[in-house]
Amino acid sequence: MRKYFAEFLGTFMLVFLGTATVVVAKGDVLSIGLAFGLAITVSAYAFGGISGGHFNPAVTTAMLINRRINAMDAVGYVIAQILGAIVASAAVRSFVSALGLATNALGQTDFPKISAGMAFFVEALVTFLFLMVILNVTSNDHGNGDFAGLVIGITLAFLIIVALNLTGGSLNPARSIGPAIFAGGSALSHLWVYILAPEVGAILAAFCARVLGSED
Amino acid sequence: MRKYFAEFLGTFMLVFLGTATVVVAKGDVLSIGLAFGLAITVSAYAFGGISGGHFNPAVTTAMLINRRINAMDAVGYVIAQILGAIVASAAVRSFVSALGLATNALGQTDFPKISAGMAFFVEALVTFLFLMVILNVTSNDHGNGDFAGLVIGITLAFLIIVALNLTGGSLNPARSIGPAIFAGGSALSHLWVYILAPEVGAILAAFCARVLGSED
Amino acid sequence: MRKYFAEFLGTFMLVFLGTATVVVAKGDVLSIGLAFGLAITVSAYAFGGISGGHFNPAVTTAMLINRRINAMDAVGYVIAQILGAIVASAAVRSFVSALGLATNALGQTDFPKISAGMAFFVEALVTFLFLMVILNVTSNDHGNGDFAGLVIGITLAFLIIVALNLTGGSLNPARSIGPAIFAGGSALSHLWVYILAPEVGAILAAFCARVLGSED
Amino acid sequence: MRKYFAEFLGTFMLVFLGTATVVVAKGDVLSIGLAFGLAITVSAYAFGGISGGHFNPAVTTAMLINRRINAMDAVGYVIAQILGAIVASAAVRSFVSALGLATNALGQTDFPKISAGMAFFVEALVTFLFLMVILNVTSNDHGNGDFAGLVIGITLAFLIIVALNLTGGSLNPARSIGPAIFAGGSALSHLWVYILAPEVGAILAAFCARVLGSED
Repeated sequence: MRKYFAEFLGTFMLVFLGTATVVVAKGDVLSIGLAFGLAITVSAYAFGGISGGHFNPAVTTAMLINRRINAMDAVGYVIAQILGAIVASAAVRSFVSALGLATNALGQTDFPKISAGMAFFVEALVTFLFLMVILNVTSNDHGNGDFAGLVIGITLAFLIIVALNLTGGSLNPARSIGPAIFAGGSALSHLWVYILAPEVGAILAAFCARVLGSED
Repeated sequence: MRKYFAEFLGTFMLVFLGTATVVVAKGDVLSIGLAFGLAITVSAYAFGGISGGHFNPAVTTAMLINRRINAMDAVGYVIAQILGAIVASAAVRSFVSALGLATNALGQTDFPKISAGMAFFVEALVTFLFLMVILNVTSNDHGNGDFAGLVIGITLAFLIIVALNLTGGSLNPARSIGPAIFAGGSALSHLWVYILAPEVGAILAAFCARVLGSED
Repeated sequence: MRKYFAEFLGTFMLVFLGTATVVVAKGDVLSIGLAFGLAITVSAYAFGGISGGHFNPAVTTAMLINRRINAMDAVGYVIAQILGAIVASAAVRSFVSALGLATNALGQTDFPKISAGMAFFVEALVTFLFLMVILNVTSNDHGNGDFAGLVIGITLAFLIIVALNLTGGSLNPARSIGPAIFAGGSALSHLWVYILAPEVGAILAAFCARVLGSED
Repeated sequence: MRKYFAEFLGTFMLVFLGTATVVVAKGDVLSIGLAFGLAITVSAYAFGGISGGHFNPAVTTAMLINRRINAMDAVGYVIAQILGAIVASAAVRSFVSALGLATNALGQTDFPKISAGMAFFVEALVTFLFLMVILNVTSNDHGNGDFAGLVIGITLAFLIIVALNLTGGSLNPARSIGPAIFAGGSALSHLWVYILAPEVGAILAAFCARVLGSED
């Protein structure tokens, strides 16, 4: 059970720090990207020794495909991740409410400027790149375990910065589910893009990383 | 005595760099968060080898509960931390005065927009998360000693960024006592929140971290 | 073939994250510098174990002169780097187009405020400094392999920040070729500066680094 | 001679990246602090293995007092540092001139808002703190050699951010001499503060660090 609690906590940190920086701290693009990314970094070093530090169903999918986790654990991880994200969004909602801000602006992800197809392409592409970094930097063959948590967090930060104006930069179904439940509207009706596209990107990366020799 | 001097210096660095960035440098939210957080990082690597690098009475409380420090040292640490914070605020006050700025704006913590109950909840929650990261990243079981100082500093930075508009983001009784003494007003009358709430968060984290196996 | 794919991916990351931060994310000078620089950092840790992590024809040239790579591989690396940059610019162009922005603003490099001679001097100087750091921090004699990826990325970030208002801060022929092909105009007619000047800086650094004892 | 060249290069990087970020890149307070600080970080990892990575006459003074360098080398280091700073300011001046900006604004240090006495106190205090971190994080007794370069750079960054509105945040006689020579005016007539105050802070730190056990 320890590892599911670790996944819950890490995903809570990601969604709490990231979405609160968007709405409560009114951060700029650099602060927002770094808040999401470095939440992964600190959770990876603090809790990654327990669970491996996925904090993202798309990451768990890629790890399952490349046999770094078994199916039973993968299901438990995903449930813990989604619960962590929902509790984080509830906390952010209480902050937003206490400040008298609109309670339907919770850092949810959406794509008001582009088509659903383009949003799908963007989320799949940035998640593909994210997983390519994760699977290679944690590779026994050519990775670097000590720096992996830092590298993965920085990668997420700048991929989010790039995608922010297009799709909000999710790369993570759990991160989108949490705030969408409370915000409703198009964040909820567009949620399928943020669940499917990162999974597609992650599945493609799982196979491509093998070509680079990430799995022994 | 060396370790008390180390705690004094580290807490001085935290309050000096952090609060001076608020009032003298007029930093943005990212600069302010990083100034507080990375002050912990640099002090942890420079002086943590002497004292363990607490620089915060709430951290010392959690370490006492989980038996990583004895009661005698804990008292000495807390006194050194509070003295370090007070001397730092005196230095910042001299800078503020030299620049002709208002000497009652010293980067003190307060909660003008929210209720005391909500402020208590915010400070307890962010300090709980801060200690969960600290206790696990320094765990013999699953931590990472080399990166701990960096991870703890980054965690503090982004928890402060999130809490800044709500409570000023203290997470540390000493950090709030220092400027409150010189600034007076509601920073002083609300000081009890900043003393009690971080301690409550730290105590809860001490027990929760054990569930994750942070103590052998 | 694995190493050419690694060079393709790393250069894609550099040009994709960097130029998209310029045009899609409308980043400030710090975000832009860090996006380019930290893209090198994450690619170095993720893919550098496969190829050595050049991601830049000027770096490959210096490595060839100092016999850290053979001529055959050098040619393959440069081709992979240029292809990675072109595909990255195609992706950024699709984002720019989806947002309804001008498709001739793709983060290309140019020097509207200064002469071609001055631009040449700037690009040669900053690339010289970049390679001096690379060749020494990866030196067997006095380098630090573990931190090399982080150090090289930070160096690139701040050299780009300095050069941004002068030449756009390329330091990398591939990074300039990618967007210039799609943007055309003076970015294309001035491309020779961005191909030749970094190479001159890199060649000078290859010799100067030997004076410092970078090669055994 | 190698080590003098290393000191020349590192000090060049510091003054070049830092002062050019002030005037050419028109950076904000965070960018400016990080440019100076991280220039030390990258130079420490790239060239510190050759010379120890001082890049600052005040650092060399403290190292001389605590017998980590001999007097002969100390003189050579200081000469190399001052030359590196002067050449860096000449390069920045050529950039400023090429952009048509005022050639007497070169990122020099001055204190237009405060008295010379207060400026002396500020520079002595922040340099004292800087050296306390340096001497302890590089201590054989309780330091951390691997992270030292990163820690020292971050420390410099945030001490400069704090001091920027007061004195420009020098902490380094060489860094102030370089631009003052070309800018003239009060930067030159006030130069004595930037030469003496950091040395006073460094000398005090050399003795205080021994109390903490920094020297074996």
